[in-house]
Amino acid sequence: MAEGYKSVSEFIAAGYQIHTVYHTVAADAKLHNLSKKINFQEITEAELQKMSGLTTPQQVLAVIQLPEWPKLKPEDLKNKFSVVLDGIQDPGNLGTIIRTADWFGINHIICSDDTVDAYNPKVVQATMGSLARIKIYYTDLEALLPTLNLPLFGAMLDGKNIYTADFGSEGLILMGNEGNGIRPNIQPLITRSITIPRVGEAESLNVSIATALFCSEITRKRFK
Amino acid sequence: MAEGYKSVSEFIAAGYQIHTVYHTVAADAKLHNLSKKINFQEITEAELQKMSGLTTPQQVLAVIQLPEWPKLKPEDLKNKFSVVLDGIQDPGNLGTIIRTADWFGINHIICSDDTVDAYNPKVVQATMGSLARIKIYYTDLEALLPTLNLPLFGAMLDGKNIYTADFGSEGLILMGNEGNGIRPNIQPLITRSITIPRVGEAESLNVSIATALFCSEITRKRFK
Repeated sequence: MAEGYKSVSEFIAAGYQIHTVYHTVAADAKLHNLSKKINFQEITEAELQKMSGLTTPQQVLAVIQLPEWPKLKPEDLKNKFSVVLDGIQDPGNLGTIIRTADWFGINHIICSDDTVDAYNPKVVQATMGSLARIKIYYTDLEALLPTLNLPLFGAMLDGKNIYTADFGSEGLILMGNEGNGIRPNIQPLITRSITIPRVGEAESLNVSIATALFCSEITRKRFK
Repeated sequence: MAEGYKSVSEFIAAGYQIHTVYHTVAADAKLHNLSKKINFQEITEAELQKMSGLTTPQQVLAVIQLPEWPKLKPEDLKNKFSVVLDGIQDPGNLGTIIRTADWFGINHIICSDDTVDAYNPKVVQATMGSLARIKIYYTDLEALLPTLNLPLFGAMLDGKNIYTADFGSEGLILMGNEGNGIRPNIQPLITRSITIPRVGEAESLNVSIATALFCSEITRKRFK
């Protein structure tokens, strides 16, 4: 389920198969911009309240056919940076990571099998439409990573300073679970441990914040 | 209300006045490390479930006396960077901003009067204990900002590239509301508009992500 005109229109534009677009009378005018091949159904404000997962529902929501997860082609990861997530649990964090990756032009996110489902409605909402554009894979990281032949940059509390590290021109940014970090059986696969230097006193950073700082640092090198 | 051993212990360490610390039998051993002058009360798992705002309650929670908001002394903002928030509404965003500021050694956050209350339990939770260390002020930004005589860096969709901008040695990082950005009556006070370059296709960044990227860029200059 996707909520809000913007998010729904991104899924339509990306070619997702739309089951039904539900909308109130108030949203009627806007819908003329959407594809005509879609099944529309008008609902009341009361019905919207019941269907929506939001505290403040928007006037449009869509039920969308779950696509198959895409198959990873290792050659698609060459000459670019991608994000690898090891056990992210919070839907808001995953959604924000997807949105941030989309801002920075990172198009592939590889998730461990136990990472929260990217089609969880709270994830969909937090991506603000970016989910429709980003390829997300679920897999056994321990089996996959050694086969990719790409530098694996692990976000750790100890490691090379992110601001002075050389990321080169391709690789994988590996982020760990909110409470426990990167799993012990994945850590030996890391090519280089990278750390975000702490100047103040917080014990850790939120994982979506840390991911954004990695995406930003990689991007920054283009503007030197 | 603060939940979890870590968060509760940070508030105690910071000298907040604790009304009562509620805890289950399971948390008993840990509590010996906390101050002895505090009022403890044992509760059952069922009572914890009712009191907690979390899906997965932790074994300890504290009811804490709301302190007065501190009075802003303009001289405290000299020779450093602080964050200014114009109408942030989402408690998770404010909490994450406080936690991130604490990581980067930014100790003052100035909020418009309509910014979400920093003692909202969802904010407290998202700060992961950092709230106890950061000074937060609520004020009329339009009246305050012109009196501070500090560079005001506004996060805008158009402006100087954050990666190449010179932030100097002091100033205020101004972030706007989630949907609407910085208010039109505040925008003329901006000394320099700064933008985070978009490489991909997302329409915007989450405000806590954008704030973190500003904090990070200011910090990075120390590691050149």
